[in-house]
Amino acid sequence: MKIGIYGYGNLGRGIENAIKQNDDLELAAVFTRRDPATVSINTEGVPVVKADNVLDYKDRIDVMVICGGSATDLPVQTPKLAEHFNVIDSFDTHANIPLHYKNVDEAAKASGHTALISCGWDPGMFSLMRLYGNAVLPDGKDYTFWGPGVSQGHSDAIRRIKGVKDARQYTIPVESAMERVRNGKDPELTTREKHIRDCYVVAEEGADLERIEKEIKEMPNYFSDYDTTVTFITAEEMKEKHSRINHGGYVFRSGKTGNGENKHVIEYRLDLDSNPEFTSSVIAAFARAVYRLSLKGDHGCKTVFDIPPVLLMNRDREDCIAHLL
Amino acid sequence: MKIGIYGYGNLGRGIENAIKQNDDLELAAVFTRRDPATVSINTEGVPVVKADNVLDYKDRIDVMVICGGSATDLPVQTPKLAEHFNVIDSFDTHANIPLHYKNVDEAAKASGHTALISCGWDPGMFSLMRLYGNAVLPDGKDYTFWGPGVSQGHSDAIRRIKGVKDARQYTIPVESAMERVRNGKDPELTTREKHIRDCYVVAEEGADLERIEKEIKEMPNYFSDYDTTVTFITAEEMKEKHSRINHGGYVFRSGKTGNGENKHVIEYRLDLDSNPEFTSSVIAAFARAVYRLSLKGDHGCKTVFDIPPVLLMNRDREDCIAHLL
Repeated sequence: MKIGIYGYGNLGRGIENAIKQNDDLELAAVFTRRDPATVSINTEGVPVVKADNVLDYKDRIDVMVICGGSATDLPVQTPKLAEHFNVIDSFDTHANIPLHYKNVDEAAKASGHTALISCGWDPGMFSLMRLYGNAVLPDGKDYTFWGPGVSQGHSDAIRRIKGVKDARQYTIPVESAMERVRNGKDPELTTREKHIRDCYVVAEEGADLERIEKEIKEMPNYFSDYDTTVTFITAEEMKEKHSRINHGGYVFRSGKTGNGENKHVIEYRLDLDSNPEFTSSVIAAFARAVYRLSLKGDHGCKTVFDIPPVLLMNRDREDCIAHLL
Repeated sequence: MKIGIYGYGNLGRGIENAIKQNDDLELAAVFTRRDPATVSINTEGVPVVKADNVLDYKDRIDVMVICGGSATDLPVQTPKLAEHFNVIDSFDTHANIPLHYKNVDEAAKASGHTALISCGWDPGMFSLMRLYGNAVLPDGKDYTFWGPGVSQGHSDAIRRIKGVKDARQYTIPVESAMERVRNGKDPELTTREKHIRDCYVVAEEGADLERIEKEIKEMPNYFSDYDTTVTFITAEEMKEKHSRINHGGYVFRSGKTGNGENKHVIEYRLDLDSNPEFTSSVIAAFARAVYRLSLKGDHGCKTVFDIPPVLLMNRDREDCIAHLL
């Protein structure tokens, strides 16, 4: 299976790494909007190609992994590339998934390709856990907690405040709330009760720290509904202590059976050293399924919900039945 | 969807309950080897039928849920019934799954039916977690821990010892071992290091308790490889304190990405008040998928690995994409 990587940032590099861990996958080319001469990749002998020339590779790529951002890149790139390639992306703006799905589905069906959107861990593995949980415990409640880990969106929001040079925001799930869920208490939890927002900020010299802290804590949607802590640090401290890209989280489903007298709790937890590398590993497995579906002529846009799990594996079905079932 | 229940014990009653929680499922009939007049079920207006007469219902059942035991019932019942019905079972003798699969597959394909074997939580949900874990972290290790919960097989083994009137065996995962796994230590664990076996025994009057304890602790396969505790109790205490049917367990996958410098841990945990009722809930969801596949003409024997998750849901695909992805 020949994989193309479209966009070479953290995620693109993660995909490149994941390909090396799967011996049935091969990197065919990396596409970039930058000058290819300035982009050095970690796989020898693989071309770095200007994104404008992607159609030159129309028949040399089995699945194109699109590594753009969800805000402005993917809504354009995924439907466009689905006209010419089997594609997979990690579109993660939950509210806009139905629209993105529709656009990609139309393009893929018209051109006879297979696409899969919103792949990674949330959306992705967490979505699967929500669906399985709902399917097997129809009378129940869902809980998703994120973190501890860095939220890129919240860090960016702080950076846009006047006087802020750099910022890192950690989303931290509230342990006592999770413990109530874990113990089957089915609590009703407000936004504030579920997550804490812990911010580390490098301010410009002479900036008004009190104002910055106030602006962060009162920012609507991002921080005002949360208990938020703000700590000012130096640029050196930021570099030393806050450069990890770990993340993770929890999906719970709790439900009742019988006449409601029996309680069941399902908990799925991810503890990830590298958010982009784990996301890439999930994408690599689903890219394999995309290719297999395309070979069967099963075209259009898919999601993780549509994929028979066995298609993710670089192993025979018989082997999976004998050793994993 | 009309469901038949073949065998009316704990699991059969669980299926009956699960059907009530899913408004697209309807109980059509219960089949029993006992005298139907002696079997009273919890759903009004549904016939209890002698198992010998099951073929009278050939065209009135969409999926037959076979609730027999794995040792001697299912190896015969599932292939036999797959000649006439779409079927699902919870066959759980891991080592014999490939043979059972083959027998059921041949029968279902020859007759044009859809079958699914080994459904429940292990095999079942735990199998899915092992497969997803292996797919997304190919360079990693698997760990499955069971309990705390009652092992029927081990309890039965104790009951066969001379002088034992009743017994209950709890399988308990070793918390310190799980903690090492959870922290990404990738330990090599012996059988003894993973689980403790905690036994409660009612002895016959005048029985030699020392001999019984010794026979339990030295029983090969069942106990000799474990740290086993034996506590003698009265029949009253057994009834009062040891009649719960809770169970659960853990599936871990830990793996590395990048150049091996980034570690990821996936943990899936089930905490179940009622083992048979949760198993039944899983079977009900997969029975829905079996019926849907049969309508598409997708015949033969399936496993949980073959089922696109969306087919488990009593909700539209669009709704799942909009709200669970």
